[in-house]
Amino acid sequence: MGFREQLQEVCRKVEGAVACSLMGVDGIEVDTHLTEGGEVDFRTLLVEYSGILHSAREAAAANQAGTVSEISISTDKLVAVARVVSSEYFMIIALTPDGNFGKARYYLRVTAPKLLAEL
Amino acid sequence: MGFREQLQEVCRKVEGAVACSLMGVDGIEVDTHLTEGGEVDFRTLLVEYSGILHSAREAAAANQAGTVSEISISTDKLVAVARVVSSEYFMIIALTPDGNFGKARYYLRVTAPKLLAEL
Repeated sequence: MGFREQLQEVCRKVEGAVACSLMGVDGIEVDTHLTEGGEVDFRTLLVEYSGILHSAREAAAANQAGTVSEISISTDKLVAVARVVSSEYFMIIALTPDGNFGKARYYLRVTAPKLLAEL
Repeated sequence: MGFREQLQEVCRKVEGAVACSLMGVDGIEVDTHLTEGGEVDFRTLLVEYSGILHSAREAAAANQAGTVSEISISTDKLVAVARVVSSEYFMIIALTPDGNFGKARYYLRVTAPKLLAEL
């Protein structure tokens, strides 16, 4: 299964998923599966969120708090969960606020090694 | 119940909790309950994480992604979940990586309005 199919599969399995992406930590997208348009400009938001992931990694490293593996950001319109795939890449899923957060975390965790194997 | 007792109660109820704080969004601590020392300098990390919360709020607002209600950052040493209490304050709990993430989210959600009522 290629990147796109893996991302699509995650969206299919997680209730409320609107998009799933594989991103470089520099904010450059490798591939994205979008399930619907929605009112949020997901691609621009992803670039901003990748900056936040970068800040969190630096903050954790500077405070001997270990290596960041996952970040989630919930707003009243969108829930985003990002999981680190490697030092250079992460995957991120966006859900509606009533989406299945636990399942999103689970499928990111199991899919990240599969994407890593193809990078 | 005062701030400290509320924070202590959250730590008592959530397995793996090491600390719970009420913070200003400017990174200034209102009150903290620490259950143990641990190897992570929790207070310094809090200041950094409050900066991340600030960045996430700006990113979400700039992209019409709504108002941030919750952020979590997981590393191999520490899981932190922050919940917005008001535009000026947030509460944050730190857990061991095997701590109960779902319960942490739940108790932040139910405790935030109680803290707000006392602010």
